[in-house]
Amino acid sequence: MDISLFAIFLLACCAAGATGAVFKPGAWYKSLEKPWFTPPDWVFPVAWTSIYLLISFAGARLAVIEGNAYAMAFWAAQAALSTLWTPLFFGLRRIKGALLAMGPLWISVAGCTYTAFALDFWAGLAFVPYLIWVTVAAALNVEMWRLNPDVSPLSTD
Amino acid sequence: MDISLFAIFLLACCAAGATGAVFKPGAWYKSLEKPWFTPPDWVFPVAWTSIYLLISFAGARLAVIEGNAYAMAFWAAQAALSTLWTPLFFGLRRIKGALLAMGPLWISVAGCTYTAFALDFWAGLAFVPYLIWVTVAAALNVEMWRLNPDVSPLSTD
Repeated sequence: MDISLFAIFLLACCAAGATGAVFKPGAWYKSLEKPWFTPPDWVFPVAWTSIYLLISFAGARLAVIEGNAYAMAFWAAQAALSTLWTPLFFGLRRIKGALLAMGPLWISVAGCTYTAFALDFWAGLAFVPYLIWVTVAAALNVEMWRLNPDVSPLSTD
Repeated sequence: MDISLFAIFLLACCAAGATGAVFKPGAWYKSLEKPWFTPPDWVFPVAWTSIYLLISFAGARLAVIEGNAYAMAFWAAQAALSTLWTPLFFGLRRIKGALLAMGPLWISVAGCTYTAFALDFWAGLAFVPYLIWVTVAAALNVEMWRLNPDVSPLSTD
């Protein structure tokens, strides 16, 4: 694995991760009705850190394989969509609006997993925890929307 | 050019562009001291739309070329960093904090331009307006920080 490539993919993940550091859950998130399968708070940073390391490893492996076009396109899409989701949900408290990012994010991660397996077994495997996690995250987002019909987005002026 | 690849890269750009749609400049931005070279407001959406189309075109061309590893890694990094910048600057009003995204963003776009030219002339050329724009954006960010030393970030609770 090329460590410089790994570092650039990790930089993209850090951009996504930074949104979690600056748009914190806080009191608003605590006040939301949550579904029974909501993980405890400490799970989120652990899961995301592991996922960022795994998909940066996968990115660095896939980047040097011929025929990586779709894998690289989906990798870029998931990075941007993942960076978008947190400011929508935690920043603007748009529970429903965040679903508009979550849907394409799920598709991009599924696309990454599928195309990665076709190119390199270990890269494909490295995407599996992310696909599971984003599936849980999508279900959480949908359920929080359903359980909190009266929560209105933050007004910004 | 593979239109599906173009669409996936454009999806990544849409995530970045969505931050501009939901975190609007508004009264706060109007109130900032701005440097003499600040473009009029209408230039921003026109510039970004053109850039998104151009770099999606470049992404789709580069994705199918062997040896695209660094070009693809930088493409992903710029997508995530560009999505991060707007919520930092317009969402949290962290003029200084946004520079921490702008620096790596500039490097990623320079990396894209350099590696793209090495692989494909048209893809490289398609990155030139973005490199110029992000250079102006970085200068704007630095100058706004310098000209508005007393502006404090939005508090979020």
